[in-house]
Parts: sequence; C-alpha cells; structure tokens
Amino acid sequence: MQFNYDPVDADEANRQRAIYEPFTHAVRELLDATIRTQAGPEDIAEATRLIEAVTAGLRTSQIDGPFGVRFTTEGEGMSWGNPVIGVRNPMAPPLEIKRGEGRCWTDFDLGAAYEGPPRHVHGGISALILDHILGEAASDGGDRPLFTGTITLKYLRGTPLGALRSEAWVERVEGVKTYARGFISDADGPTVEAEGVFITPAWARDPQ
Amino acid sequence: MQFNYDPVDADEANRQRAIYEPFTHAVRELLDATIRTQAGPEDIAEATRLIEAVTAGLRTSQIDGPFGVRFTTEGEGMSWGNPVIGVRNPMAPPLEIKRGEGRCWTDFDLGAAYEGPPRHVHGGISALILDHILGEAASDGGDRPLFTGTITLKYLRGTPLGALRSEAWVERVEGVKTYARGFISDADGPTVEAEGVFITPAWARDPQ
Repeated sequence: MQFNYDPVDADEANRQRAIYEPFTHAVRELLDATIRTQAGPEDIAEATRLIEAVTAGLRTSQIDGPFGVRFTTEGEGMSWGNPVIGVRNPMAPPLEIKRGEGRCWTDFDLGAAYEGPPRHVHGGISALILDHILGEAASDGGDRPLFTGTITLKYLRGTPLGALRSEAWVERVEGVKTYARGFISDADGPTVEAEGVFITPAWARDPQ
Repeated sequence: MQFNYDPVDADEANRQRAIYEPFTHAVRELLDATIRTQAGPEDIAEATRLIEAVTAGLRTSQIDGPFGVRFTTEGEGMSWGNPVIGVRNPMAPPLEIKRGEGRCWTDFDLGAAYEGPPRHVHGGISALILDHILGEAASDGGDRPLFTGTITLKYLRGTPLGALRSEAWVERVEGVKTYARGFISDADGPTVEAEGVFITPAWARDPQ
C-alpha cells in the first residue's frame, strides 16, 4: 500500500474542496439524469458531444492513476475519491459519517443510481455501505489502519430507495481482530444487518 | 415489488440502447475525470456551468422515479439502471455477465472510481459485485426471481485496481433456498470469496 502523497494543510484542503465539491455534485446530478432521461436521439448526441468536450478539458491536467488515500498535515483524512464517502467521487452519495460514544452513524438518501429490485436498493449497495461503516467503526474513524477479513450481511427485507440510516459499532477486540456490527434502517426499522471481522495489518501492529 | 413498465420489443430495445449506451459511456469517462482532474478554479466553474446546462436539458423529459426493472416482449432483461450491469448507469462498470455449464463469469476493469485502499478496490465494491453475480447464478440469469437472504465475503488479500474476473455457481438448492458461491480474482488468483443464500419469494414459489 502506498500512502505517498505530500500532505497539504487544512487551508489548502479547504481551498481544493471548495473548487471540486460543487462540481462533483453537478456530475452526481447528471448521473441521475443520465439514467432517467427520455430525451431523443438528437438531444442525446448533442449532450454526448458537450460531455466529451468537458472531459477532454478536465483531462488536460489530471493525476496519473487513482486519487489515493491522502491526509492533511493535521492528519485529517482526504479520501475524496472513495466510492462511499468521497466528495470528489460522483458515485458516492457521499456519506457523511458521524462518531460518538463508540458508535458511527450516517443519514443519507439513495436515488435511481442505486436501484436493484424495482424502487429498492440493490443488495450489493447495502453491502458496500455496511462494509464501509463497519470499517470506520472498527478503525475508530481511520486512526487505526484495518482491512476487512470477513463480513456477513443478513437481508431482513427489501430496503426502499429514499431516506435511510446506517449505524455501526465495535462489539469486541481480540488481538489483531476487531469484531464490528451494524445495520441499515428505514423509518420502519432495520432492513439489513451486518457483522464483520477486521484485521490490523502486520506493519501497523504494536511491536511485541 | 412493481414490475409495471410496458414491455418493448427487441427492435425498440436495440434502438433505445443505441441512443443511450454511448452517452452513458461518455458520462462514465467524465466520472473518472472528475476524480482525477487538477484543472483550476475557473476551468472547473465553467465545466460546472456546462454540466448543469446538460442536466437541465436531460431533465426536461425524464421518467418519474428510478428506471425500474424492465423486460422486452421476448422476456429479455432490461436492468439498464442497475449499478452493476446497467448500460444506462454511469456508476456501473458495467459488467457483462456470461453463462454456461452452470456457471456465471465476467471479465472487467475497475479504475479510480472504485478505489478504497490506495490503488486497490474498495472492499464494499467487491461485495457489490459478488452479491450481484451470485444472485445471477442463483436465479439462473434472472429467469427465477430471488432475493439475497445472507451473503458472507471472505477477503483473502487486497484486490488491485485493473483487470479482474468474477465467477459464481450454484452449490445446491434446498426448498426455497439456493446456495451459491463465487470469487473475484486477479492474474495471481482469487482475492475475495463469497457464499450466499438466496430465497425464492412467496409469490414466485410453485403452488404446493
């Protein structure tokens, strides 16, 4: 794993965020409209030309490869390319995960881009979100590097598109293994439950 | 669950696909460039204005709500909004799943939008893909409606971004429960293994 980007200070991180976050939000809206539009062939051909021109402009100056996992000089995480929480990834809702009293939680809204069964969240999208939030709980907000060992999802009923909540917490720690649990819920209660075992990598373990 | 779209015939499905698939591909490229660009504030502000104008144009005629799960009059699936296989969803790679001799498989490539740990696939993205392909194997390509009951993912090592493969197959069927297994692999072998139990919904069971 390479964490080899030069850290930037909080002011520079805020400056970059102010540039790219509203743009990413605009692309996220475009993503939704791309799935739902009924525009005809000429309009779509014209839209394609415009999008290709924008993309070519953006690519005249771009990093080589993916965004990476970056940190500010203050140690704040900048996982801006992440598909769950990334403020520069139009695929991410993005989740804003809160922490307190040993728990993580997040309130979010999923639309057309996350649909599996009609008007319901794709089961794998629930798995994506739960993997992420259990990992956040297990790693104490990213302070301790951890990798998923195993995760089990139990689907109680369909998860409707719309307003949802997810929560996660650590059940216990045994040596290099951290056991976390969590769920996704709608207004009527949990729809999917998860339990996971997260492993501290050898390079991040306390010397024996 | 509502499967209430009027089916279209194969010719009409192909006509629509020819309009929207290349456009969705262009938005998929934009999504990658959005994460990786280093363009400055003026260029990003101009790109934002252009994207917002395209989105507004697309939204002048759009369906009310998500795309839904549609079928052609020939019974061919049109899950075009699906986040794993949807040819109209810029979030989807999209996977093209092949079938034969009791197995499903797919070769695909994941880039910057799917990154979790540096230069590696987000564990939850692997879960999303495995949930989908195990479901495809269990439902015999969508011919039998099934919902995920439980799924367990075992992460053997990090999955690098780039060229990957996924396979899935049915292990056994016991009443309403179908047991499926599968994996994701890179050139060096499996990186994540999965097993899932899929349930036939009551409304789709054979009358007793």
